[in-house]
Amino acid sequence: MKLFYYLIVILTFLSSPLFAQEKVQKWGTFELTLHGSQEGNPYAGIKLYAKFSDNDTTYKAPGFYDGNGTFKIRFMPDKEGKWTYTVYSNRDTLNGERGSFICTPPSPNYHGPVRVKNTYHFAYADSSRFIPFGTTIYSWCFSPDSIRKETIRTLKHSPFNKVRMLLIPPYSKKFVKNGPFKLNNLPFQGTKNHFNFSRFNPTYFKRLGKCIRELRRIGVQADVILLNPYDGGWGFENLNFATDKRFVKYCVARFSAYRNVWWSLANENSFIKSLTDKDWTKLFKVVKNEDPYNHLRSIHNAGRIYNYTHPWVTHVSLQYYNAAREFGVVPLLRDIYRKPIVLDEINYEGNINRRWGQLSGKQMTYRFWVTYIGGGYATHGETFKSNPWTSTGGKLIGKSPSRIAFLKKIVDHAPTLNPIDQYYVLNLAGKEGQYYLKYFGKKKPQKWKFKLPDNGLKKGMKFKVDIIDTWNMTIKHVNKTFTVKPLNRYDFVGKKGRSVKLPGRKYIALRIERVK
Amino acid sequence: MKLFYYLIVILTFLSSPLFAQEKVQKWGTFELTLHGSQEGNPYAGIKLYAKFSDNDTTYKAPGFYDGNGTFKIRFMPDKEGKWTYTVYSNRDTLNGERGSFICTPPSPNYHGPVRVKNTYHFAYADSSRFIPFGTTIYSWCFSPDSIRKETIRTLKHSPFNKVRMLLIPPYSKKFVKNGPFKLNNLPFQGTKNHFNFSRFNPTYFKRLGKCIRELRRIGVQADVILLNPYDGGWGFENLNFATDKRFVKYCVARFSAYRNVWWSLANENSFIKSLTDKDWTKLFKVVKNEDPYNHLRSIHNAGRIYNYTHPWVTHVSLQYYNAAREFGVVPLLRDIYRKPIVLDEINYEGNINRRWGQLSGKQMTYRFWVTYIGGGYATHGETFKSNPWTSTGGKLIGKSPSRIAFLKKIVDHAPTLNPIDQYYVLNLAGKEGQYYLKYFGKKKPQKWKFKLPDNGLKKGMKFKVDIIDTWNMTIKHVNKTFTVKPLNRYDFVGKKGRSVKLPGRKYIALRIERVK
Repeated sequence: MKLFYYLIVILTFLSSPLFAQEKVQKWGTFELTLHGSQEGNPYAGIKLYAKFSDNDTTYKAPGFYDGNGTFKIRFMPDKEGKWTYTVYSNRDTLNGERGSFICTPPSPNYHGPVRVKNTYHFAYADSSRFIPFGTTIYSWCFSPDSIRKETIRTLKHSPFNKVRMLLIPPYSKKFVKNGPFKLNNLPFQGTKNHFNFSRFNPTYFKRLGKCIRELRRIGVQADVILLNPYDGGWGFENLNFATDKRFVKYCVARFSAYRNVWWSLANENSFIKSLTDKDWTKLFKVVKNEDPYNHLRSIHNAGRIYNYTHPWVTHVSLQYYNAAREFGVVPLLRDIYRKPIVLDEINYEGNINRRWGQLSGKQMTYRFWVTYIGGGYATHGETFKSNPWTSTGGKLIGKSPSRIAFLKKIVDHAPTLNPIDQYYVLNLAGKEGQYYLKYFGKKKPQKWKFKLPDNGLKKGMKFKVDIIDTWNMTIKHVNKTFTVKPLNRYDFVGKKGRSVKLPGRKYIALRIERVK
Repeated sequence: MKLFYYLIVILTFLSSPLFAQEKVQKWGTFELTLHGSQEGNPYAGIKLYAKFSDNDTTYKAPGFYDGNGTFKIRFMPDKEGKWTYTVYSNRDTLNGERGSFICTPPSPNYHGPVRVKNTYHFAYADSSRFIPFGTTIYSWCFSPDSIRKETIRTLKHSPFNKVRMLLIPPYSKKFVKNGPFKLNNLPFQGTKNHFNFSRFNPTYFKRLGKCIRELRRIGVQADVILLNPYDGGWGFENLNFATDKRFVKYCVARFSAYRNVWWSLANENSFIKSLTDKDWTKLFKVVKNEDPYNHLRSIHNAGRIYNYTHPWVTHVSLQYYNAAREFGVVPLLRDIYRKPIVLDEINYEGNINRRWGQLSGKQMTYRFWVTYIGGGYATHGETFKSNPWTSTGGKLIGKSPSRIAFLKKIVDHAPTLNPIDQYYVLNLAGKEGQYYLKYFGKKKPQKWKFKLPDNGLKKGMKFKVDIIDTWNMTIKHVNKTFTVKPLNRYDFVGKKGRSVKLPGRKYIALRIERVK
């Protein structure tokens, strides 16, 4: 027994913090905490980063000052095994620290950051599909705790897997004491003199980080909006470029190690009159250079559309309602940009007295279908007078979310949707010869003569058809098999001219799948 | 009398070619002919240009070899007064020649080259408006003389003021002996070995030049298509970049002094598999560098759309039928590109067995209206089995040209058309507070409640209304005046809710003009 006792002592010692290697799951976050002096302006005046290496790849992870003499460097490992690091800083007390940790296999729900895949689509780093169904909850981080918790509960039971959220809320006096910036010692006058824009308020950013991690926990992408024009007191919209750049860098240093982050440089960027498109390009490059993980990057327009063809823009994040109203526009946008098309503002379901917040549930659902049938992705929002989800979060009361969930279920089980014969047939997407979704929108056909573009078809192939009522959320199987034959240079039809009888209502779609 | 006699002699002497200054009208063409040796390859192996100066501006005009020991340099002066020139060449016999000419005022129908004006539109160099109404006559230059003459007569009496034309016709055996290239001494086998691609055939290019001048004479823009993928024997589509570049340079040297030239780098460029988008960019730069006058430059796509946001592209020359089928797409394209949008292929009116050549006259007319109501410009084409205008020229037999002429007359008398409230109202263009065109397309409203977006409106403004039947080409004045008042945050309506009674047919438009 004595031997056993010694063994226990030795094992306990070996597993003590002194010897144990810290463990972090793949795509989790390793956090290094350092202590240093508060002299000067540690928020902006220092250089701090660490190089993390697994002997194969080296990443340069930015650090940041977290207040009270505490500096932090966060890192997201993307490979299992041992990682070592060295800290670099222009402050001697921080410089040169070394260490290591072990990266363990990811949990089953860890898929890594989302990347562009096959030009027009997305996938997680582990190659599993990511099909965005976005919603907008601009200021949910700044809502009271109870509403923040309710927001997470609502999201968990919603179809939405991407949230557009502001990192600076529209100005309100209640945020003054706990806003993004330190205060100057002046009586409050609601002007920008009140703030010291070169020093950040860590408490504020900790709340943001917590919100992003909450989304990460439930598998939702945080499409974080760095800058916005919803001023009114911060004065932030009219600052100089250097301040904007400092803010962007600080956010990237704090949040880039969270795998679910997407960078949206701004909301309605052209309303920020102090920044030109050249400035936005510089800010894109700041994000690109500072973020070691190459998270997705875009920008959201008002009138003036930033040039999304630039290589540092990973996807299009457009506000252009007509693109979701008219068939065929999303395919055109795909052809223009050759990037994923995310229609991040297509008006909101609601009843406020602004025309951008007055969609009916049917209109919102229609716009989602038009977008996905074009091979793009859409973002929802809800603006009811009684329930301003898109401002504050909380609960959803609109009629579209359940229909969007219905669409999502169909899309999740479909091959990746791409337009088929998009110059001539505007309402058809799928995979040539295998799978088709055809959406009739506001038309009310009584029947559909089975006819498909010839791409990928061969005489004798057989198909089954389901009739989808996108509003009433029903799927009815058609009790016939359709064997195809060529009709002319462009089309195939069903043998004997077979047709599908349709209900003669709006918002009907067909699912056409090959059978052996 | 003797004195008088001497005077005559002296005057005759002074006005002889030796002393007389050549005269060229502003925006006309000065042509300098030089003689030199034929040694080496004078088509490609030499440097030749002249600097033309009026002591204020200096232009570098490229020269070219015209066969039989003749070299030419053409120049288009853009200012009245004396111009001097000096020739530069790496061939001593050509180098150093100097001279001058007088630039006289332009004829009333000389307006100079067309430029981009106000971001989305065009104007001549003399500031007069140019509103493109294009047509496509790909190979008219290669038709027999009688058809070429008929083409010019037809154009003179048509609404069309811009012609898209190929500089290399689709391959046909009849062009072999008089094609763009010299022949090798080989028996003809229909392969590219037959041609010496580094030596041009001046006879061929003289014909092209004559056609461009014929269009210039009648005031029609020549939108010349430098390269195309309609191969089949030239082998031109699969040559190396150096040959393409040589061809482009030679064309620019020959034709840039014609004021009505627009450069279209290619038709359906992505079908030319041997050239990448980087190659196209290089060719754009060749044109930009060689052309002293900065004529308009674009490129016409097939599937892959060249990046029209590049600064060397002056306007968008798109083939995307849906942009002319769906309301609201042209405004989107304007917002994306911030350049003039020319829909240079929207399918053709005709009855051939290809679906791109089967539009009815009504469909073609509809697509024109959709394009112009969006603030863009369209190009017509006609492909009847019995009358292939768009291939060969000759006469027009379609039903759309007279309707396009009717539209042109309306547009010519309107202020420049820009979309108004384009995110929410898709079928309205004009000038805020002054002039509106509203097009109902395929809808058949029985009445229209007078309602306009608030931009530019003030309570009490008065408007008159005309009902335009775009197909039957009638304009009916409404015998009422409409005094406007605000309805809500976004719209103005007529006092007492006044409405306009409409005929309940398709293809109706309204013209709404302010009256004092």
